[in-house]
Amino acid sequence: MKADEFNLDDAVAILERTPASLSAWLTGLPATWIRATEGDGTWSPYDVVGHLIHGERTDWIPRARHILAGETGPFETFDRTAQFTESRGRSLDELLATFAELRRENIAVLIGMNLTDDDLDRTGIHPELGEVTLGQLLATWVVHDLDHITQVARTMAKLYTEATGPWSAYLSILSDRLERAK
Amino acid sequence: MKADEFNLDDAVAILERTPASLSAWLTGLPATWIRATEGDGTWSPYDVVGHLIHGERTDWIPRARHILAGETGPFETFDRTAQFTESRGRSLDELLATFAELRRENIAVLIGMNLTDDDLDRTGIHPELGEVTLGQLLATWVVHDLDHITQVARTMAKLYTEATGPWSAYLSILSDRLERAK
Repeated sequence: MKADEFNLDDAVAILERTPASLSAWLTGLPATWIRATEGDGTWSPYDVVGHLIHGERTDWIPRARHILAGETGPFETFDRTAQFTESRGRSLDELLATFAELRRENIAVLIGMNLTDDDLDRTGIHPELGEVTLGQLLATWVVHDLDHITQVARTMAKLYTEATGPWSAYLSILSDRLERAK
Repeated sequence: MKADEFNLDDAVAILERTPASLSAWLTGLPATWIRATEGDGTWSPYDVVGHLIHGERTDWIPRARHILAGETGPFETFDRTAQFTESRGRSLDELLATFAELRRENIAVLIGMNLTDDDLDRTGIHPELGEVTLGQLLATWVVHDLDHITQVARTMAKLYTEATGPWSAYLSILSDRLERAK
């Protein structure tokens, strides 16, 4: 097997570590950090955790089940801004606990599917992208976690763009995705 | 105080969380992930942790002391590849434990400096950047942690560029810094 091929055990190894890593990183951080954004229309670390929760509820496992059930219609569209209403009134610590619980449940469901290589090749229809495989869905789940970890780091880092003075020239994170909304 | 001004308590809040977050994320991960790179001349997650250790030993606190001692010569140049020899033969778990211990000690030293606002404005000479302040050095320490967290996430994510299939178009992390070496 090539290192860059999807492997279920390797994928689970990343997926199961994300909640504890985020909790160790963000629990108890001052609001200065957790409510920071990259500008209008961009997300704070708090918003990102809410978005990850919504994915656990409506995206990854529901879509995997959709594929395994052999449904021929497209997946339901994923709501990328659901967290702005769903997270309302909840602390970041509550959101982190909810994310950890949902992720634990979803990994148990994933392992319980006892997926074969043939299963990973089964296909579903994405509403925008067209035909995708179950293996691609699960690889995307992994990369999606990592993408949002970079978003949290980048958002917090940019708060100190001015504060780093001349060093900002060395800190590439400060110029990553300057114009992108999420 | 503006949110984007350097604040010592806020900086410490990030600095003290990085080791636990990295440990929760990387401890026990398969070599597929921790030895992945973005290509020739780029660093694996294993290499990054070694680099963070070298920074704890030779960069942040030594340079802070240099400034506070009023030394007029430039800082010693930081060795950006020291980890390739210093980490040799050590497991990632050992490196993570060393990083956590050094970081804990360095934060204790930082707090023990009882820095005033005037101290944060004191200056030193960077060998390439010229005059920098202690506040800028400490802000850079924070952003440097976050930059390397994005590097670890990005490096692991890119292993699954092909595996995500059509979804790669949505996963911006896969195109971040495609040509950059670190």
